[in-house]
Amino acid sequence: MAKTRTIGVALLGLGNVGGGVVKLLEDNAAAILGRLGAKLEVRAIAVRDLDKPKRVVDVDRGLLTTDVEATVRRADVDIVCELIGGTTLAKDLTLAAIAAGKHVVTANKALLAEHGAEVFSAAERAGVDVYYEAAVCGGVPIIRVLREGLASDRVESLHGIVNGTSNYILTTMTETRRPFADILRDAQALGYAESDPTLDVSGGDAAHKLAILVNLCFGTIVDVAAIPTDGIDIVEPIDLDYADKWGYVIKPLVIARAHGDAATGPIEARVHPALIPRNWLLADVGGAKNALYVQSYALGPSLYYGAGAGMLPTAMSVVSDMIEIGRNILARVAGAPGPTRPRPAQPRALMALGDVRTRYYLRFGVHDKPGVLGQLMTILGAHRISIAQVVQDGRAADAEPVWVVVLTHEASERDVRQALGEIDALDIVRQPARLIRIAGDTK
Amino acid sequence: MAKTRTIGVALLGLGNVGGGVVKLLEDNAAAILGRLGAKLEVRAIAVRDLDKPKRVVDVDRGLLTTDVEATVRRADVDIVCELIGGTTLAKDLTLAAIAAGKHVVTANKALLAEHGAEVFSAAERAGVDVYYEAAVCGGVPIIRVLREGLASDRVESLHGIVNGTSNYILTTMTETRRPFADILRDAQALGYAESDPTLDVSGGDAAHKLAILVNLCFGTIVDVAAIPTDGIDIVEPIDLDYADKWGYVIKPLVIARAHGDAATGPIEARVHPALIPRNWLLADVGGAKNALYVQSYALGPSLYYGAGAGMLPTAMSVVSDMIEIGRNILARVAGAPGPTRPRPAQPRALMALGDVRTRYYLRFGVHDKPGVLGQLMTILGAHRISIAQVVQDGRAADAEPVWVVVLTHEASERDVRQALGEIDALDIVRQPARLIRIAGDTK
Repeated sequence: MAKTRTIGVALLGLGNVGGGVVKLLEDNAAAILGRLGAKLEVRAIAVRDLDKPKRVVDVDRGLLTTDVEATVRRADVDIVCELIGGTTLAKDLTLAAIAAGKHVVTANKALLAEHGAEVFSAAERAGVDVYYEAAVCGGVPIIRVLREGLASDRVESLHGIVNGTSNYILTTMTETRRPFADILRDAQALGYAESDPTLDVSGGDAAHKLAILVNLCFGTIVDVAAIPTDGIDIVEPIDLDYADKWGYVIKPLVIARAHGDAATGPIEARVHPALIPRNWLLADVGGAKNALYVQSYALGPSLYYGAGAGMLPTAMSVVSDMIEIGRNILARVAGAPGPTRPRPAQPRALMALGDVRTRYYLRFGVHDKPGVLGQLMTILGAHRISIAQVVQDGRAADAEPVWVVVLTHEASERDVRQALGEIDALDIVRQPARLIRIAGDTK
Repeated sequence: MAKTRTIGVALLGLGNVGGGVVKLLEDNAAAILGRLGAKLEVRAIAVRDLDKPKRVVDVDRGLLTTDVEATVRRADVDIVCELIGGTTLAKDLTLAAIAAGKHVVTANKALLAEHGAEVFSAAERAGVDVYYEAAVCGGVPIIRVLREGLASDRVESLHGIVNGTSNYILTTMTETRRPFADILRDAQALGYAESDPTLDVSGGDAAHKLAILVNLCFGTIVDVAAIPTDGIDIVEPIDLDYADKWGYVIKPLVIARAHGDAATGPIEARVHPALIPRNWLLADVGGAKNALYVQSYALGPSLYYGAGAGMLPTAMSVVSDMIEIGRNILARVAGAPGPTRPRPAQPRALMALGDVRTRYYLRFGVHDKPGVLGQLMTILGAHRISIAQVVQDGRAADAEPVWVVVLTHEASERDVRQALGEIDALDIVRQPARLIRIAGDTK
């Protein structure tokens, strides 16, 4: 019997995901060997502190090292798995691994969104593979679906729930009507949210993932900082009540859409909580789950749903990437030009937010005086904003504003912003208007 | 500039899917060229009748031929695309193409479910690729997801809606409460159902697809004829009413689950309409759409949703397969052992239906007499069937049975069948009991 081939793996980082990778490689060892025809063997694990008292999994201490520079260059390592996160050390080590001829698996969306072009062109020069299934939607194999499953298709638009923490918080707000800050505090205590949750709840993490999806689907590199991004903290419990009354729920979305020429037209991309119809599949994506709803030319609508984070789901994507690189190595095509690299960047403009057309939920806090509704409607009308529904609350306590809530037909963001600017300057207005976009029923 | 490489394709059949393939290759030609780095060129299309007056798409008549035997052997053809269907001519031609060294793309679930072992071992001997993404769930790239996306995972169970016609009919029955036969007649008139719908509504088509999924997920070949299969014609409008009352909808499911040892334990596989909780994602898969809900060790639950049939969705999967084979050809690894072949068949037993444990919806049509309910409950209890809910209709017209409807806790199918045998023999019973299994809430 031929000796079983072994493919050497180094892990950079042994946190939650790294621990999951070690566990999964052990738990599913026989199945992985059967499917790959070779063994994936961890040869080294770079950590910050050799003596950390408690780890996610038990590992052979002999595998641990703090010499991360040497780890990415080890002769017995074929695949370097970057699980450190961030864009400084992670970037240096990824480029060092590539320069040393190592294939790379990474779950680092920030690195790819901000420095993807540099990483992938270095990989091309070095003739190595870079796989990143875990970077978007965790365990849901959305990168493979878009890259290979829909290889013959043309994506027209995407709507995704790609940040589990935001979805968990908004789902819990919807179920309990407790305010954002309270739920965030509980989520932190339970470990569902980071101690610094900014990147999650601000939409920043989702914007990184959206940049990767846009690159995959539309073949262009977008500047993450230029993607219009609202965090979920703009949603208050009262907005959930109004949404519910009209048959909507509020979900933390990423949205992208191609406009004009299929190869060169501008790309609309935005990150924000949105009202979506309750009967849309995305409305049922609750808790910390992720999903991507894709509209493409040939397939029409399709949806991909599952765990967007967590130790084993994320590790599953990482190890599936290792298996695919392992197959490439065995077939001697690792590093060959192929479908795994993002397509060549074409200069496609990011559509200015002002040019976006969608429907809007607008909530105005006004003084309870006759004629207020008329003033609001007049200004909206003057800016070509057509109203689908409007509701005005009954009389409030003197200290409280009265709410006027409006659902618009499709309008341009520029017109809406101008109208809100005028309205917010009125004497009758007690607080700035709240704007939440509507998605999923404008087709 | 280097000359663009061309990969030659032959189509067997120019019906709906064949026409879609021609259209998609034209419509997305530039994108496909960009992604593959080569042109996919149709060199021949085998049809039954050269002079058919009306075709789905306009094609160059010079491409048409009736000499199907010569077509699969053409020297200028790299990929043969089998779109004839059936298991006789399609099998002969597929094997002839393989013997001639051609790679094969097929959408033929019956062929793969019944003769997959023969086809794949012929392909292995000949060193060619056989791809079949379109065979299950049409345009939803479920084969790639299971084979590559979840390569490092271990599937524990599957629940799928994989027959669009059955789903369309049950969805319409749910919306209108009209009987099965009426809706089928309308669906045929509208082209949503075949003129001979037997394979769709009997569950036979779904059983073929389930056999392919079981092979992919659990590495074993099952005899399609041995999969317990109920058609959707067992559902009557009144069953939808009772289901609705208890928070369920009825969907045409395929179900598979691994038991015992992860590599050798028996496989539970069955095809039938099932009551599923209304708040489960599969409950929202309406119309002719397909979806697969996968429970796996590392990822947990995940769901894949989209068009399971139709000209362009199915063609999309076929052409994506061509692109992948094209990449293999360019990388000189086409036909190499790899992930694309179903895993080696291991002898895993198909669990006997009697050994299956699930929950049941049972509807009894009885004479309206005191003591009837007691008799039914006594027999069920004697067979270890524990009752979760029971409802007895009010008095019916003399000619009509009174309905007693029961939801059970988990019970063995053997016990349930024995109990129903005893109950159906009672004098108080006016018609045989109706049994519909429950899924999705037994975990």
